[in-house]
This record gives sequence, C-alpha cells and structure tokens, in this order.
Amino acid sequence: MTTRVKVVQYGIGPIGVSCLRTVLSKSKHIELVGVIDIDPLKVGKDVSEILGLSQKTGVLVSSDASAVLSSTKPDVVLHTTSSFLARMYDQLILCASHGAHVVSSTEELAYPYHRHPAIATELDKVAKENGVTLFGTGVNPGYAMDALALMATGVCNSVKSITVNREVNAGLRRLPLQQKVGAGITREAFEEKKATGMFGHIGLVESIRLIADGMGWTITKIVEQLDPVISPKQVETPFLVVEKGQVAGIHHHAYGYDGDELLITLDLKMFVGAENPRDEVVAESDPPMNLLVKGGIFGDTATVATLINSIPLVIGASPGLKTAIDIALPRAFGTR
Amino acid sequence: MTTRVKVVQYGIGPIGVSCLRTVLSKSKHIELVGVIDIDPLKVGKDVSEILGLSQKTGVLVSSDASAVLSSTKPDVVLHTTSSFLARMYDQLILCASHGAHVVSSTEELAYPYHRHPAIATELDKVAKENGVTLFGTGVNPGYAMDALALMATGVCNSVKSITVNREVNAGLRRLPLQQKVGAGITREAFEEKKATGMFGHIGLVESIRLIADGMGWTITKIVEQLDPVISPKQVETPFLVVEKGQVAGIHHHAYGYDGDELLITLDLKMFVGAENPRDEVVAESDPPMNLLVKGGIFGDTATVATLINSIPLVIGASPGLKTAIDIALPRAFGTR
Repeated sequence: MTTRVKVVQYGIGPIGVSCLRTVLSKSKHIELVGVIDIDPLKVGKDVSEILGLSQKTGVLVSSDASAVLSSTKPDVVLHTTSSFLARMYDQLILCASHGAHVVSSTEELAYPYHRHPAIATELDKVAKENGVTLFGTGVNPGYAMDALALMATGVCNSVKSITVNREVNAGLRRLPLQQKVGAGITREAFEEKKATGMFGHIGLVESIRLIADGMGWTITKIVEQLDPVISPKQVETPFLVVEKGQVAGIHHHAYGYDGDELLITLDLKMFVGAENPRDEVVAESDPPMNLLVKGGIFGDTATVATLINSIPLVIGASPGLKTAIDIALPRAFGTR
Repeated sequence: MTTRVKVVQYGIGPIGVSCLRTVLSKSKHIELVGVIDIDPLKVGKDVSEILGLSQKTGVLVSSDASAVLSSTKPDVVLHTTSSFLARMYDQLILCASHGAHVVSSTEELAYPYHRHPAIATELDKVAKENGVTLFGTGVNPGYAMDALALMATGVCNSVKSITVNREVNAGLRRLPLQQKVGAGITREAFEEKKATGMFGHIGLVESIRLIADGMGWTITKIVEQLDPVISPKQVETPFLVVEKGQVAGIHHHAYGYDGDELLITLDLKMFVGAENPRDEVVAESDPPMNLLVKGGIFGDTATVATLINSIPLVIGASPGLKTAIDIALPRAFGTR
C-alpha cells in the first residue's frame, strides 16, 4: 500500500475506543478521517478528548453517519456498534452505499447465512452493487474457534471431527469481561441471568456454521449448553473477589451434528482463576492435528487486531459479503 | 460443490503417486480424468497398475500433455513435476492455455516474485488471459514455515519479529527423505553434497519472502546456512543405521533482515532421532503469540493434503498467479 488507508470508526464503545488508539498508532498506514457515535456525551468532541490525549486530532465525533461518510469518503469503515445484526444492518448498508468497505465486530456477521439468511442476501447484493466488501470478524467468533480450526485442517487428508478448546483466565481481563461472565455472583444469580437468554458468549453457533461451511459439512443439529464454573477457592482479581463456591465464570459449549454423528465440538471456558489458559484445536484426522496457542489469545487487544488487520483483506477482496472462508489469510497489518 | 471436480494429475513421481491415491479416495468430490508423465515405464499403463490396484480405473498415463488437457478439459491440474520453476513453467502455461486452474508442488512457485520475477509476470498474464488461477503450495514452503506464521499474527496489533521452528524426525519418514537429509553419511560427505549447492531444503528463501510480503515488510538481506546435525548416539530406522558421530540430518536456517534488524528467523531441523518434533511460531508481538503444532506436521501425507485441499481455493479465486497471501484460508476438502 503506497498511500494511507482512509478509515472511519463507527461506534466508540470500549472496542471502538481501543480501535481508535490502534488506528492512531498506525498513522503511517492509516488515516483516521471520521468518527461516528450517537452518545450525546461524545458527539462534537475531538477524538483526543475521548482518548485523553493532550494533542487535538482535528477529528470530531459526529452522530450523522451519512454526513461523515459523504464528506470523508473512507476506504474502510471499522464498525463496532452491536453484536446483533438485525439491530444494525442498515448501518452496514449505509456504509456500502457510500462506497466504503466495512470490517465489523458484529458477532452475528461472522457467519450470517444461517441465522439471518435474508439480511445476508441483502447485504451481499448491496455490497456487490457498490463494489465493496462487507466482513465480520473478531477473535471469537472469527478466529480462535473457527478460522484457526479450519486453517489447522489445511494439511489434513481426512478429518472425522474437530474439537476446539478455548480457556480464558477472566482474572487477567478487564472488569466488564469479568462481569460479563458472572464472576463473583451466586449460582442462583447465574441461573437467573441464564434464563434471560442474553447471557453467555455470543458466537458459538456462528463458529460451528463457519467451520461446517468451510469443511463442506452438513450440520443437521446444534446443541448448545451454558454452565457456571464454580470457584473451588477464593480468588481475587484487581477488580473483584470470587468466594469459594461462587461463580467464577462460564463454561459455554456447543456441538454440531450430522444426524447422530458429532462433527464439531466447541468448548469455551472463561473464568477467574483459569490455570491453563489456551486455544487448542484437535482434529481427529490424517495426519493427526493438535494445534496449541500457548497461554491463549488475549482477547482484549486481539479483538482490535483482528479488525484492523482485516483492512487490507477487505480492500483486496472481490465485492460482496465475505466470511473467514472466502477472504484472504489473516495476518498483521501496519506493523512497520 | 454440487458436481465433481475434474482433475488431471501432471507428474507421477512419489508425490504425484500419493496424490493419485488421495484423489481416488475422494471420488465423491473429485473425478480423475487424466494422468500425464514422461516416464516410458509408466506411459500407456492404467493408473491401477501404477498404484497396484486390482481394479482398472480406465485412466491411462499419457506423455502427451496437450492431448490430455484438450480431450479431458480438467477443472484443475495437480502439478507435481519439479522443484524448480525455470525447468517447467512452460507446463504451467500449457495448463492455463487449456483453461485449467493449476495447483503445483513446485517449491519456487510458493513465492516466485523474487527469484523469478519475469516468469511470475508471464504466468500471471497468461493466467488472467485464460481466466484461471495458478497456485504453488505444499507443507514447506506453503504452510508450516510461512502461511501458518502469517495466520498466527492475524490477532496481533504489533509484530517486531517472527521466528518459526520446524523440527522433523526423519526417522519416521520414508527412505528418500532420510537420504535427502544425509542420514548416515559422514561429515565429509555432507560437506561435499553441500558444496554442490543442490543439497538441503528448498524453500526457506521463498518462505521469508512470502512472510515479508504478507506483513508488508521490506527485506534487504537474507542469510541462509546449512549445517549437519551430528548424531550423539547410534540410531536405527526401518531403512538405515546412523552411527554415533555420523550425520543424522540437516539443520537449515535462514534469516531475513531489514538493514541490520532481524525480522524473520526460520529454523528447520530434519534428522533421524529428533526427539521434539514440532512446528512452532513465536512472534515478538502484542499480544504475544506462541503457536505450537504438537508432534509437527507430518510431511509425507500433509504435502498431498495441501495440494488437494487447494482445489476449491483455486476454483474460488480470481484469475491470476496467487500465493498463500492472496488466496482463501486453507482447510481440508472432500472429507465427507
């Protein structure tokens, strides 16, 4: 890339703010041209105020997405507003209709074809009409429990089943993540949260569908289960204390079957006090495959990396809605 | 893929023969329509005779590449004739001009732009003119010491350097590989072989160039070194004995610099008696990355897998000459 990529940041919650910092740190490769957010406390402020920087950037937060896209004509929009496609796919269409590629952290966009086939078809159509690429990614879904598993099978002749184990020590992560996994609550409180249907990790179903599509496998049934991890002892984090017998976090697991045959197992543990944090892919395959990321992929920073590293991938891709199986190999961008 | 992919096997040395076996085992997904080889001992024989199968396949080995391509009109040619591009790039052009995509095991094709820029330009031009994709891959180069390393950085914000360690226990491999790495010869014989310039692994330079291109890094200097691994004790394989003090195999290592800064280290050991066989990627990065394939990727079978698994990738790619950084994510093909 000989010129800098013009980027708009769309959504500046925690992930969006982290994106902004990384975008500014890669100013040799990326030019931040606009920031969109609807929060009245942020609108009108210079990005420097949002990030607590001493020097003004000259880029102000605006709530008028259309105006920002029209005036700045970004190459790529980094989109971090919601986990759920139905709530925000009009935002993606707006970006596309302004001729901008989009990299989005929306979990459901990592594999939208199953849960939201009509939206996926519409997004693909609009993207192609406008000659742009729309791509949903992240660490999980998007990498640790799907793309990395597929990559691992690239050297296998036969594959009978794929198991992915991800164990995250929530104690090393930020407070919001510790709260998100229920660290320090009671078993009863866990069951209440679980009953809302809005608790646990979002994306295991997307990851199973993505793996299955990549492998050309039919999945007739997905079973998903969410259990508490109960702490066997008192554990302290910088933010909270988990007493013995309280919830330390989540054990969220999902299984993809073809008929009665178990093809894909995804096992995710995120809890305070995890002693063997790792990402692991085990394929029952020829040759056998056992891939380990020691210590695991550190989600807070890695999520931002997956988004920013996708910038050259969407620029280089053919137009349309893409997933991890039809875009080029992930790799770091703008590191020198 | 609703219909079977029509495949021609071009070159039936050891790798090509393994390809044939795997192609036939995936007959639900792949139809073998032709086989090309110049060996007079093989020409005219049914593939079943080559493979020692009892049932005829009806596909005969032919030395007339043009006739095979014209009459069978394959979707994809699996090309396994030579490690060196200059010797055979006319074969690739012939395939392309017959409208066939090509997946080739030619090591130099894994990253042809540096060593053979004129040939690469010509291949890209012919591929585009004919609407086909040409792609060179394999376990190494093509996966273990380059694509996997790039993939590992996909979750990193910053990367200062990349180190790849591949250790292969040649004692578990076929006799030709044990001979190829000099197992059981003397130090003096090793030095003589080395002096020919035709000894050691082919592809470390290609892997460094591929990583650098993927990372957007400039490499001003590559240093490559080939040393013997001397056996500390007597080791027996099913095929030969390595005495204490004899050569057990090779230690081939290469370093990519930008100025005085070491960016890429590739360390390959292939020897009889290796006790810690593995593929390992270590990035000096944020977040840190330490990826391990336990036991290592088993080359004999995995090489064939990388070729066959690339069939849907070349079919799905835009026309032109591709490398691992501009083709979709590798994954197993035709496993169910």
